[in-house]
Amino acid sequence: MGSSFGHLFRISTFGESHGGGVGVIVDGCPPRLAIDIEAVQAELDRRKPGQSKITTPRKEDDRVEALSGLLDGVSLGTPIAMVVRNKDQRPGDYKEMQVAFRPSHADATYQSKYGIQARSGGGRASARETIGRVAAGAIAKQMLRQLHGTEVLAWVKRIHTLEANIDPAVPTLDAVESNIVRCPDAAMAEQMIERIESIGRDGDSCGGVIECVVRRPPTGLGMPVFDKLEADLAKAVMSLPATKGFEIGSGFAGTTLLGSQHNDAFLPTSDGSLHTATNNSGGIQGGISNGEPIVLRVAFKPTATIRKEQQTINASGEATTLAAKGRHDPCVLPRAVPMVEAMVALVLADHALRQRGQCG
Amino acid sequence: MGSSFGHLFRISTFGESHGGGVGVIVDGCPPRLAIDIEAVQAELDRRKPGQSKITTPRKEDDRVEALSGLLDGVSLGTPIAMVVRNKDQRPGDYKEMQVAFRPSHADATYQSKYGIQARSGGGRASARETIGRVAAGAIAKQMLRQLHGTEVLAWVKRIHTLEANIDPAVPTLDAVESNIVRCPDAAMAEQMIERIESIGRDGDSCGGVIECVVRRPPTGLGMPVFDKLEADLAKAVMSLPATKGFEIGSGFAGTTLLGSQHNDAFLPTSDGSLHTATNNSGGIQGGISNGEPIVLRVAFKPTATIRKEQQTINASGEATTLAAKGRHDPCVLPRAVPMVEAMVALVLADHALRQRGQCG
Amino acid sequence: MGSSFGHLFRISTFGESHGGGVGVIVDGCPPRLAIDIEAVQAELDRRKPGQSKITTPRKEDDRVEALSGLLDGVSLGTPIAMVVRNKDQRPGDYKEMQVAFRPSHADATYQSKYGIQARSGGGRASARETIGRVAAGAIAKQMLRQLHGTEVLAWVKRIHTLEANIDPAVPTLDAVESNIVRCPDAAMAEQMIERIESIGRDGDSCGGVIECVVRRPPTGLGMPVFDKLEADLAKAVMSLPATKGFEIGSGFAGTTLLGSQHNDAFLPTSDGSLHTATNNSGGIQGGISNGEPIVLRVAFKPTATIRKEQQTINASGEATTLAAKGRHDPCVLPRAVPMVEAMVALVLADHALRQRGQCG
Amino acid sequence: MGSSFGHLFRISTFGESHGGGVGVIVDGCPPRLAIDIEAVQAELDRRKPGQSKITTPRKEDDRVEALSGLLDGVSLGTPIAMVVRNKDQRPGDYKEMQVAFRPSHADATYQSKYGIQARSGGGRASARETIGRVAAGAIAKQMLRQLHGTEVLAWVKRIHTLEANIDPAVPTLDAVESNIVRCPDAAMAEQMIERIESIGRDGDSCGGVIECVVRRPPTGLGMPVFDKLEADLAKAVMSLPATKGFEIGSGFAGTTLLGSQHNDAFLPTSDGSLHTATNNSGGIQGGISNGEPIVLRVAFKPTATIRKEQQTINASGEATTLAAKGRHDPCVLPRAVPMVEAMVALVLADHALRQRGQCG
Repeated sequence: MGSSFGHLFRISTFGESHGGGVGVIVDGCPPRLAIDIEAVQAELDRRKPGQSKITTPRKEDDRVEALSGLLDGVSLGTPIAMVVRNKDQRPGDYKEMQVAFRPSHADATYQSKYGIQARSGGGRASARETIGRVAAGAIAKQMLRQLHGTEVLAWVKRIHTLEANIDPAVPTLDAVESNIVRCPDAAMAEQMIERIESIGRDGDSCGGVIECVVRRPPTGLGMPVFDKLEADLAKAVMSLPATKGFEIGSGFAGTTLLGSQHNDAFLPTSDGSLHTATNNSGGIQGGISNGEPIVLRVAFKPTATIRKEQQTINASGEATTLAAKGRHDPCVLPRAVPMVEAMVALVLADHALRQRGQCG
Repeated sequence: MGSSFGHLFRISTFGESHGGGVGVIVDGCPPRLAIDIEAVQAELDRRKPGQSKITTPRKEDDRVEALSGLLDGVSLGTPIAMVVRNKDQRPGDYKEMQVAFRPSHADATYQSKYGIQARSGGGRASARETIGRVAAGAIAKQMLRQLHGTEVLAWVKRIHTLEANIDPAVPTLDAVESNIVRCPDAAMAEQMIERIESIGRDGDSCGGVIECVVRRPPTGLGMPVFDKLEADLAKAVMSLPATKGFEIGSGFAGTTLLGSQHNDAFLPTSDGSLHTATNNSGGIQGGISNGEPIVLRVAFKPTATIRKEQQTINASGEATTLAAKGRHDPCVLPRAVPMVEAMVALVLADHALRQRGQCG
Repeated sequence: MGSSFGHLFRISTFGESHGGGVGVIVDGCPPRLAIDIEAVQAELDRRKPGQSKITTPRKEDDRVEALSGLLDGVSLGTPIAMVVRNKDQRPGDYKEMQVAFRPSHADATYQSKYGIQARSGGGRASARETIGRVAAGAIAKQMLRQLHGTEVLAWVKRIHTLEANIDPAVPTLDAVESNIVRCPDAAMAEQMIERIESIGRDGDSCGGVIECVVRRPPTGLGMPVFDKLEADLAKAVMSLPATKGFEIGSGFAGTTLLGSQHNDAFLPTSDGSLHTATNNSGGIQGGISNGEPIVLRVAFKPTATIRKEQQTINASGEATTLAAKGRHDPCVLPRAVPMVEAMVALVLADHALRQRGQCG
Repeated sequence: MGSSFGHLFRISTFGESHGGGVGVIVDGCPPRLAIDIEAVQAELDRRKPGQSKITTPRKEDDRVEALSGLLDGVSLGTPIAMVVRNKDQRPGDYKEMQVAFRPSHADATYQSKYGIQARSGGGRASARETIGRVAAGAIAKQMLRQLHGTEVLAWVKRIHTLEANIDPAVPTLDAVESNIVRCPDAAMAEQMIERIESIGRDGDSCGGVIECVVRRPPTGLGMPVFDKLEADLAKAVMSLPATKGFEIGSGFAGTTLLGSQHNDAFLPTSDGSLHTATNNSGGIQGGISNGEPIVLRVAFKPTATIRKEQQTINASGEATTLAAKGRHDPCVLPRAVPMVEAMVALVLADHALRQRGQCG
């Protein structure tokens, strides 16, 4: 069950970096929705390697094919299976890594758990696994927009020590996509790109923070106990590779406030909907969405694979050193932006269907 | 399904603050384990209100009764049902709140979702719901200790702006329990107690950070994709009331490091087990435990209920003000320590059984 | 997870025959339904031992207590926990059985699986476990009646070789309850009672067939692949103790018909609903309810516990003989009628909520 | 969630009869097992249409491709995705059926549930959906054989009114495959083939009964309450198209026996394993396997699609008549044999992993 996510809007992914292909089944998409497969492709293009000078140079021509669940651009209510073929396999590039466990990568734990590794390159731990998530998330986004007018948008907020000051109400998709680092603060984006290039030239890598907003979410999503909306969002984004932290609303910084400073006062509205003067809650109270924008942040560690020489052991447990050959990916965050959006959209879509079923 | 957690070690909680009782069913505890119900009671005593001068004065005499699953202190492999009767109901205390939605509390979202509220006091959103979690967690702890020698221990790391400097390898349960704020740094603990008392006297509240360590975890727990160990831990603790953030290992701070600084070098070991020079990974790599201590932190916002007057609306949508009467709970963190331990233990217990089943 | 059933309308049972009590949590009952706890008690009274001269003489005063999820007779949308205390424990009665495995009972397999037995009487294999199911089913029935006008009714169709000829459209609850064997054919019922008494006097036992009808089911329930409505119904009733077979609609007998004889012709209706001339399909086509009455039958084997001497082994594997002491239960079917209704109602309730969630 | 089956050994199928392809993801197959993809293909060949003169003439060249989860014939512990391309789409053949609902087929209920139909031919209700099940079942069979020496074998026991008298201990796969009707009683097989041909020439169809045995099953599989082994087997086979009944062991016939006749006496064994003199229990007692062969039977109704003219309605609710054009499939049972084996193997594989996880 470890490769499935969600309950009523449920996805199951498959595929290693070096098998025949990767993909996903989306089970539970309601029938009679307009689904644009080109919008799925567009999301995959946002996550693919080689899209700019600051990502890995490995080019992947990730063309998605929908095998089922759609007819003439309309959902049938049946599972939507989507496959992307593996083309750029080049197992030779990883030969050295097969021998030595890459520090802070999944090589060693994977070997200890399964006693066998998918061909070098990480098996299911490969970033290529996220193709299925992004494709499924693109379906979830289309459902949310059609049924609820909901928008999910993420951006890079910090790279290494460079943090942009962004009001979550402002960025548009166009602003995010206007530069290759996906930071809607254009001036800061330029600095970030320079920083990534500089760190990459040194053979090193960096991390940072991605912020995500959900605009016009349905009110009432989430359950009051274990399946709180923020809990499911936390699991969703923390299941992405390289994540080290999650915040909702005021997050860690909010813990230094007093209750009188942190509480979000309710304001009267003309239509009886909920509205708060501030949004320290990040759009969720008691595990349930209150209709305000949902705002969350995700911490990504620096990429594990670097060209600098590192101490490690090989599969026989002997000390050795390791340095990745060729160019590497100095910063995963620009490509992780659509992944965060996808995981957030999947949680919202699932809870929207659960809300219909359980509180109808 | 929103009141269940886990897969093979699965718990289902029930109960509102003002019904007949609260409790939990633990389904999946392996047979023939020694289970001490007094150890369950001891954990409940750590979470109960009224245990010290810095918590809510509301006294609850929470006596747990095990209805099934145990015989002469041994688990039968069948569901362990545990119930705690509600005694101190006093619905009158909350009369005013029934009318006005408490800011940043679950009142308003709960009403919007269910169209009905459990009698005032929060229904399932009540902190009293966590009794079932703590009781179940106490079973999980006993299982982990017996089968794997694993220890789960949490403590208060920060209250408001007062942060203790604690090496996660050092604290013992005795040290944590040696003061009422549950911070193993005795000098800082005194300051924290004063701070909480002072804020409480002002009718205000504060939050902070709890840190948790898992010592001697089994290697190989966690799945490589959605059910990464850190993802399930994130969901587990973010499902506790008042949480706003989660970190594993280096967390948000680690995102300002370079890859060469952040990577944990593997060191050779005599027995072939994995061991790393540093532990920025927090004991988990690629979603799978590597045997190093698991270290995580949880952000808790300041308690929503305060005595200071606040702007809000009533259930009819009209503007009003609200100030809690009587004494309130100025800081939830000391009582949340056993809750964090419980949720972490539940995740570990579940993944330990999954590991036996799937990679056995 | 083995003690839970259902997805959106999900129940979890607990309890052995000789612990503190047995019960159930119903998670997912929608809010704001009128729930009559006395109707739950009435169903439990239908299943309790000692209710008539043809069942086990063991009297159980099974009073149900609802601990949560209800307020003033209205559902809150939160888990409904119900408990029945164990009173008539008398473990001494089973002493001999503790030593010798009862043939065709769960004693031996239970021991082989868990390596430990709940105190004599069968642990979770006890018929007493069905108390939780019947209580939960009584909630499901009330939900189905209120939301959809649906009725679930079962009766005894055959005892040993005595089969009643019953048109499923005819029986009422009053007719079923008008005699102690719960067969709505009064003349046949008398013969059945005599047969059970006669077999019981011989120290032997008998089985038979229970038939169940669902009147006015919602159209569109069930999923087209694994979660076909008849598949979930089959699992539901085959999880009851002593069941050996399941049929839907024409069942095994229908397999001797030709397609031209078996197919149910569609008839035009004034309101566009589906209606068929015959109902060999038993109300379900392609796994999905078509609005016609759902008709199913369940085979129950003769009760395993008898007073006649039998060959068996003891827990040490040595040959021995066994004969139950005192009076025994010669026929479980009259008490199993409410159990079948409960399981069928639980499946319908779950699929009704899934239909709302997934096809809206 | 309706397109997934199993818990630890979990499969998810996808695909309509007229989309790009059909297939399955197998999630939870343990690592390091030898998996022969040609054995998967062999099972698909047993289920494919056009394999003999007594099945549908529609030829499908169903070549399976494994996209992931395997490397050099060894399982990686990751999801095994298998796809079969659709080639023989010919939507034109079904034009007439698009207009008129086929009696006792899924057309009408499908339309009422989803409000949209996959292109004519039945969408997910198509028998083509079972390709994914059979492929997954072939993986489960290989796992069961390697880990436990378990064999799963099914055969046709009855066609229309022609019933073979078969001792479940005797048939081999070779005997089953020695004739096109898959009945190991050669003389009866010839009669069955003649009967099917005769009924087919009349434009009609017939059903029957398939019997399945599991030899050398692990002892201790199954849970004592809802997830009884026979309950999960019932759901598994009743989720196959055209099934109307399920029996385990003595089944419906056994309900006419007395307890003293029906109980299976335990015999002493030299190795402490369980062994019974008779096997009316069908290898399962109290929901848990006792090590004796598991024996079950499945009722299949006559195929719904026939060439004889039938009364029905069209999608507008108007009365009309319908007669399938061209050749049809007069009897589905020979091709359903591998489907039954697949579903049974999937249940056993899942419970084998659950047993490892929960009872170690």
